[in-house]
Amino acid sequence: MDYSTYKDPLGSRYCSDEMKNLFSDQIKFQTWRKCWIALAEAQRELGLDNLISKEAIDEMKKNKDNINFKDANKKEKEIKHDVMAHVWAYSKQCPKAAKIIHLGATSQFVGCNTDLILQKKAIQIIKKRLINVIFHLSKFAQKHKSLVTLGYTHMQPAQPTTIGKRATIYLADLLTDLESLEFTESLLKARGAKGTVGTQASFLELFKGNKSKVKQLDLLIAKKLGFNDAYAVTTQTYSRKIDAKIAEALAGIGSSACKFASDLRIAAHLKIMEEPYGKNQTGSSAMPYKRNPMHSERICALSRTLMNIPTEFHSMHSNQWFERTLDDSALRRIEIPRSFMLTDSILLLYENIASGIIVYPAQVKSHLNAELPFMAIEEILMKCVEKGKSRQEMHELLKKHALDAGNKIKSDGAQNDFFKRIAEDDKIPFTQKDADSILKNPGKFSGMAETQTEYFLQKKINPILKKHENLIEKSKTEIEV
Amino acid sequence: MDYSTYKDPLGSRYCSDEMKNLFSDQIKFQTWRKCWIALAEAQRELGLDNLISKEAIDEMKKNKDNINFKDANKKEKEIKHDVMAHVWAYSKQCPKAAKIIHLGATSQFVGCNTDLILQKKAIQIIKKRLINVIFHLSKFAQKHKSLVTLGYTHMQPAQPTTIGKRATIYLADLLTDLESLEFTESLLKARGAKGTVGTQASFLELFKGNKSKVKQLDLLIAKKLGFNDAYAVTTQTYSRKIDAKIAEALAGIGSSACKFASDLRIAAHLKIMEEPYGKNQTGSSAMPYKRNPMHSERICALSRTLMNIPTEFHSMHSNQWFERTLDDSALRRIEIPRSFMLTDSILLLYENIASGIIVYPAQVKSHLNAELPFMAIEEILMKCVEKGKSRQEMHELLKKHALDAGNKIKSDGAQNDFFKRIAEDDKIPFTQKDADSILKNPGKFSGMAETQTEYFLQKKINPILKKHENLIEKSKTEIEV
Amino acid sequence: MDYSTYKDPLGSRYCSDEMKNLFSDQIKFQTWRKCWIALAEAQRELGLDNLISKEAIDEMKKNKDNINFKDANKKEKEIKHDVMAHVWAYSKQCPKAAKIIHLGATSQFVGCNTDLILQKKAIQIIKKRLINVIFHLSKFAQKHKSLVTLGYTHMQPAQPTTIGKRATIYLADLLTDLESLEFTESLLKARGAKGTVGTQASFLELFKGNKSKVKQLDLLIAKKLGFNDAYAVTTQTYSRKIDAKIAEALAGIGSSACKFASDLRIAAHLKIMEEPYGKNQTGSSAMPYKRNPMHSERICALSRTLMNIPTEFHSMHSNQWFERTLDDSALRRIEIPRSFMLTDSILLLYENIASGIIVYPAQVKSHLNAELPFMAIEEILMKCVEKGKSRQEMHELLKKHALDAGNKIKSDGAQNDFFKRIAEDDKIPFTQKDADSILKNPGKFSGMAETQTEYFLQKKINPILKKHENLIEKSKTEIEV
Amino acid sequence: MDYSTYKDPLGSRYCSDEMKNLFSDQIKFQTWRKCWIALAEAQRELGLDNLISKEAIDEMKKNKDNINFKDANKKEKEIKHDVMAHVWAYSKQCPKAAKIIHLGATSQFVGCNTDLILQKKAIQIIKKRLINVIFHLSKFAQKHKSLVTLGYTHMQPAQPTTIGKRATIYLADLLTDLESLEFTESLLKARGAKGTVGTQASFLELFKGNKSKVKQLDLLIAKKLGFNDAYAVTTQTYSRKIDAKIAEALAGIGSSACKFASDLRIAAHLKIMEEPYGKNQTGSSAMPYKRNPMHSERICALSRTLMNIPTEFHSMHSNQWFERTLDDSALRRIEIPRSFMLTDSILLLYENIASGIIVYPAQVKSHLNAELPFMAIEEILMKCVEKGKSRQEMHELLKKHALDAGNKIKSDGAQNDFFKRIAEDDKIPFTQKDADSILKNPGKFSGMAETQTEYFLQKKINPILKKHENLIEKSKTEIEV
Repeated sequence: MDYSTYKDPLGSRYCSDEMKNLFSDQIKFQTWRKCWIALAEAQRELGLDNLISKEAIDEMKKNKDNINFKDANKKEKEIKHDVMAHVWAYSKQCPKAAKIIHLGATSQFVGCNTDLILQKKAIQIIKKRLINVIFHLSKFAQKHKSLVTLGYTHMQPAQPTTIGKRATIYLADLLTDLESLEFTESLLKARGAKGTVGTQASFLELFKGNKSKVKQLDLLIAKKLGFNDAYAVTTQTYSRKIDAKIAEALAGIGSSACKFASDLRIAAHLKIMEEPYGKNQTGSSAMPYKRNPMHSERICALSRTLMNIPTEFHSMHSNQWFERTLDDSALRRIEIPRSFMLTDSILLLYENIASGIIVYPAQVKSHLNAELPFMAIEEILMKCVEKGKSRQEMHELLKKHALDAGNKIKSDGAQNDFFKRIAEDDKIPFTQKDADSILKNPGKFSGMAETQTEYFLQKKINPILKKHENLIEKSKTEIEV
Repeated sequence: MDYSTYKDPLGSRYCSDEMKNLFSDQIKFQTWRKCWIALAEAQRELGLDNLISKEAIDEMKKNKDNINFKDANKKEKEIKHDVMAHVWAYSKQCPKAAKIIHLGATSQFVGCNTDLILQKKAIQIIKKRLINVIFHLSKFAQKHKSLVTLGYTHMQPAQPTTIGKRATIYLADLLTDLESLEFTESLLKARGAKGTVGTQASFLELFKGNKSKVKQLDLLIAKKLGFNDAYAVTTQTYSRKIDAKIAEALAGIGSSACKFASDLRIAAHLKIMEEPYGKNQTGSSAMPYKRNPMHSERICALSRTLMNIPTEFHSMHSNQWFERTLDDSALRRIEIPRSFMLTDSILLLYENIASGIIVYPAQVKSHLNAELPFMAIEEILMKCVEKGKSRQEMHELLKKHALDAGNKIKSDGAQNDFFKRIAEDDKIPFTQKDADSILKNPGKFSGMAETQTEYFLQKKINPILKKHENLIEKSKTEIEV
Repeated sequence: MDYSTYKDPLGSRYCSDEMKNLFSDQIKFQTWRKCWIALAEAQRELGLDNLISKEAIDEMKKNKDNINFKDANKKEKEIKHDVMAHVWAYSKQCPKAAKIIHLGATSQFVGCNTDLILQKKAIQIIKKRLINVIFHLSKFAQKHKSLVTLGYTHMQPAQPTTIGKRATIYLADLLTDLESLEFTESLLKARGAKGTVGTQASFLELFKGNKSKVKQLDLLIAKKLGFNDAYAVTTQTYSRKIDAKIAEALAGIGSSACKFASDLRIAAHLKIMEEPYGKNQTGSSAMPYKRNPMHSERICALSRTLMNIPTEFHSMHSNQWFERTLDDSALRRIEIPRSFMLTDSILLLYENIASGIIVYPAQVKSHLNAELPFMAIEEILMKCVEKGKSRQEMHELLKKHALDAGNKIKSDGAQNDFFKRIAEDDKIPFTQKDADSILKNPGKFSGMAETQTEYFLQKKINPILKKHENLIEKSKTEIEV
Repeated sequence: MDYSTYKDPLGSRYCSDEMKNLFSDQIKFQTWRKCWIALAEAQRELGLDNLISKEAIDEMKKNKDNINFKDANKKEKEIKHDVMAHVWAYSKQCPKAAKIIHLGATSQFVGCNTDLILQKKAIQIIKKRLINVIFHLSKFAQKHKSLVTLGYTHMQPAQPTTIGKRATIYLADLLTDLESLEFTESLLKARGAKGTVGTQASFLELFKGNKSKVKQLDLLIAKKLGFNDAYAVTTQTYSRKIDAKIAEALAGIGSSACKFASDLRIAAHLKIMEEPYGKNQTGSSAMPYKRNPMHSERICALSRTLMNIPTEFHSMHSNQWFERTLDDSALRRIEIPRSFMLTDSILLLYENIASGIIVYPAQVKSHLNAELPFMAIEEILMKCVEKGKSRQEMHELLKKHALDAGNKIKSDGAQNDFFKRIAEDDKIPFTQKDADSILKNPGKFSGMAETQTEYFLQKKINPILKKHENLIEKSKTEIEV
């Protein structure tokens, strides 16, 4: 192992091997060869059998995966052109095909089609991870659907909800992400065989002006590469807007994960919930007792860079001049893999957490009880309105007492005496008996939380999990701290 | 007119009245009242007719549009709460409804539902503009589908294409934008009646624990507000991810427009195309003869801020804590209207340009002819391969001659002598006769450009225009310089 | 008041009149005239007194502030060129100067110089606000320098610090912001008189080829406009990089304010600190008792858009072609005022909060005591090491007991029994007596917090406040909720 | 070489070994040990010689660079804590120091101080590259200071300038970047020895309450680590605002480089300038004659991601809660090296280009001559004003003729007949003789361009180069295509 040079932690620490392998040179150049084979086959099938022999294609197929990197790299150093270098290296392995590899094509024939194939596959990996997070989170929501907890707005106690209901909010975001990802996937087509500036001129020449064949060639290659269709029009490349759309779908996942992880970090602060904690894990050198939500924090860290990426792709797309400028290349080489690897890393963490969230019901209850009298205000207000009082007037009176009680807690560390205060106020139709009745049944203040959770899981989540059940994995990955 | 304070040029110069009106206080508070009426009606229809009289509702309907701003503003100054101030002001106009306006609701009942209604309407305006740009651009593409022009990659002459074909690229981007916009629209549902933290607790109380009625209430309100459905689960607000998705769809439009406008600015530099130019318009104080592509430049300027907005919404969504924090409010107040107003302004400019692009065919031809010998290289290369030569060898020879010819042009300002050079090279099977034959038919170098344009317009664009033909406007707006 | 059109809330609700006035048309066109007067005076002083009479200049000075907007607007509508329209309007008021207003200049003579003047003034306003926030916050830090509070890392209890010490962190960030702002200010020079593409050609013509005079003209105008220097070289405009640098300095302020406000929102959740609360302010319609940190939340909201702006300016600068393209114009018109108005709004809120932060010492103490046993771990660890034990071994033992005690709290809602546990562990040299001794003096766990605060205020803050004491305002502004 | 996993092209293709080595594990852990040695030495010097023996320190020094990675990695796997693992591994090599390595410190003692040291060094590398770009570009500007070329505004011919003058614009931007970088450097101090939450509590304990010694410890360590000062106050970490400031300074370099490279790409289109072109380099597989400005395009690509990074750091800083949250860690691990590596890669390209820009004077002249008649308008306008004509009237007449002449060129491909037109217009005091006189001396239209270039190089650039002459490298790096 070489310790004298920079190692990107995304690759070396956070991302799955599956995703890293997808964006490896091995897979990239295999896919280039796949494109060249599809081109030769399609050309032959459409009538160029005089130029392209079956033997040539067989030779190409035989060598489709054994990339002679050394040869290619040496040639690339010499001519400084990666596609021509790999044409040369492939030709060296396939002497019978030497004249027809890449026939009529421009570099972006392999470049764009490969990028589209890889991104489609990367989307599949991300979708699998998304489904698994949804799976674990839905089990969590189901389990805690009726565990009443304090709901917060402005990070201030508001009204009770349930732990399960809160989890449905994360799930709803992930469903939107899944829909976005699938929408984005629907935008992916093959770039096909379009030629230098997208006019298919060289192919039209090859087919002696037969336009129908050129059109067929485009679609046939698309099919052979696993797409239903090819883009009807392109320049030298497919539109970089597509890259931007993918980046947006991934950024959305980052945003959802960050929202979830921020909440979990606050929940850990409240000691009501915790992310799973590895054995032998050291909290910190100075504070060993701490249960730091480090995986949740890492989700937030990675998300902040992921959410920022689409802007770069918009910048790239909007600044492309005419039939293509190369100011997309280095950015795409770096940011396409990076955005998938970030999303992959985030979802691995999310899945790990979602499958093992720890809940402390005693703490949940303790926080709730401290604020319950205030929680009842809306109900008291409505009761007063039912008894014929003006909403505004009651609102103001209750507000005053609530503020006084709240202030007393803060200034003296005293107990919550709100019920006592309003019971003693003649203008408010409220008695100690009313107070007792309220306190007896705290669960009622969470309204439809449980019902909503059941409904949501049944109607919105389960059909999705059913549809993708083949993607649900049995075992979980270990996360490196 | 008050000149002593800042006026946002987006509002005062660039954006349409239609869009500005949509985000006005008048429409906002009308929509609040629409929400309150829907709430009251739905509550009454579902059985609260003892609390909510027909008279109360009639009174509310009678006053639905005549906002008493003075009263509301005065009250808001006093109590510093806009929703309560408007409840109070509306109640003042509707004494019979005073006790039931906003019954069981929290501020975000009007806040979120109104935002969703307005954004849905704003999307309609944007869609209309998008369709009109597509309409004009498709006419342009049709008209110039066979006008051969030099295609550029790396901003260097590459191979010919056609003016019409190039326009299909802009159209393809706009189609993707339209699909994205419609996908985004499909994500919009009513926030419905969800209560303080999204549990519908106050409504469950109102309906004495009848969960089915509370569920119905949510959907009934959604319908009354023009939605097919309500979000199954929300916190105090609907998920801010939805805002981010909308911002992304709009940013995409900015990116497409900026790509188009950048190309047009370069085309204007080449004197091959120009944006329409207003009468009496002064180029610049010092250079009156100039035809500056100012509208295209403005599109780029506005797009650069529009493309940057989604990041803010991701930041907002990902940092929301638990059931809602208010660190979304000022940002949404500013950036939701702004993103629509920017898009509106950009599309007005785009439409104006697309409907009047000037083309200079003589200049188009002049640029093409200067590079035509080089343009033929791919064909010559293929011809040589057909004659049995090695692709790589020919490639290298042609490259050498092309570089020499190219260098001579640059260093001496000489004519292009590429054909002469290769005709004289014995290793290359190419004669002056071949050269003449090539020069006679320059159109052939644009390959399928014309055919692609026809196909694309017929198969991809026309069905869309047909579907939305009611949105196509007859007259165009004047743009302020 | 017109309610039928959009009103930007930044202008109508958040920003100061002072800042809005600075970016008004009145000030803008006054400054244009200031530039024209400076130009005419400098030209006359350098020898063009045959062309430029004293009477002409007197006339210009007499009309320097009474902009005839109606005339100018009408002309602008006609010729669609704002600078020429205002030259015309000014000329109408100054018939004797008609031929010499704007002599030799291009539009950007008034455009750029005015933008630089206004930004310089806007920086002064921001600096004033920054100083006032620092002033109030430093008083706060001084007051609470020894109030021990729980310090948090990972949002988990870590070690005690003091409320005052924590405030120094916000102050340190603001000092960095102030330094950045002053650095940025140092980059501001006049654009001077540079002509169409920055070559001063028209001025060289005017001065009959006298280069020295043209150079003097540039500097003389700079002086007259309040700058020490003019940029040595420009294109048609000064470098848009300068705009980016300003935007960065402002974004930094947003970041600091957001960090402060996020902390205060968490502190409010803990009920240890609160932002000042206006009289008659309604918490929320449904939860009147709540003390929502709405101003802090608004700071975060506004900061999220402010922090995002520099990217736009980088995009603008990096895409400027050759001697200037106009794809900067609309963006600068919108984003320069907006970035200052956002910063202004944020600092007004920050100042308002900083001058009235409420602290609840009883709550501070209550949170501290609950975690004090854990807080002592580092000390216990060090004591054990002093007694000859291995750091690693002790670390692991203490960690185990701390985790057990922590788990018990969470699962049972029990009291913290950490001291009891370690006192009973024979391997750890710790007794109940040690425990008592620790608990007797909790203050000692805050280390140098108080000392650091004193030192920091005395050495770092006070000199700055002293230097800028003229900027410290006595009365505070009221903030609109 | 492993081809089965992702390799970041930034590391494997674009960035210098020098920069990659700086951010390697080897340097990182050496620097950690440097911090531990500084801590031990300072503690001993300040009186803890009973605890910390000379032998222990000698042992630490002896092992300062021979990191036992295997041991450390194995331990880290086990305890999942990198700092404790390296303390353990170092202790294993230094048995005498085992008890005192990291004494009183928290992880961020090594974390933050190391990050600051590495960033300071990385800034030095960037500064060196910046100086070298400035060096080459200034030679270029000097060489071409009087080569008159067409200046463009709106990408339309405007007025002549010179090639050298245009280069001063890039230089001026780089000077601003250098100033920003040096300002940022001035913000870097040591984090020193601050302890868990920044209160130095553990050190105060170690020094038995002697505050003066604790203060001295902080500064002594800072000195030993190469800083003039330590931050007066920190939390567990130094303020993440500092990271944001660094990212901004680097983003600014990206912006300048992208502006330069965009211009060069347009210049290459005009065939007036070209980036140096490697031997044996293949233009493209299909268009071998092309001289694609690939390095300039790559600069733009890399800049677009670099310019986008500061937002992430603002997001990170503004969301840090209280004394530190770990949602900074993964982001900083990835983005700090990445931003330096991007800048490094960009400047390597910039330097390579700047040292070998090719200029084609014949093409420069050819473009100029085609537009010269229009170029003279400003002069003609001024001449007319001198002859007593109204500026506005002449402006309108000239504008009309210029537009007509311009239109004729575009529609007919005709020659520029502007001079003929105005000579024939009786209202304009202009004759063919005037035309001839103008055409005879085209150089005069570039005004002060040459003089400005000389002045700028002499007064602004040379002093900087002089100051940093030790940084100027003699040989250039080869860039990988």
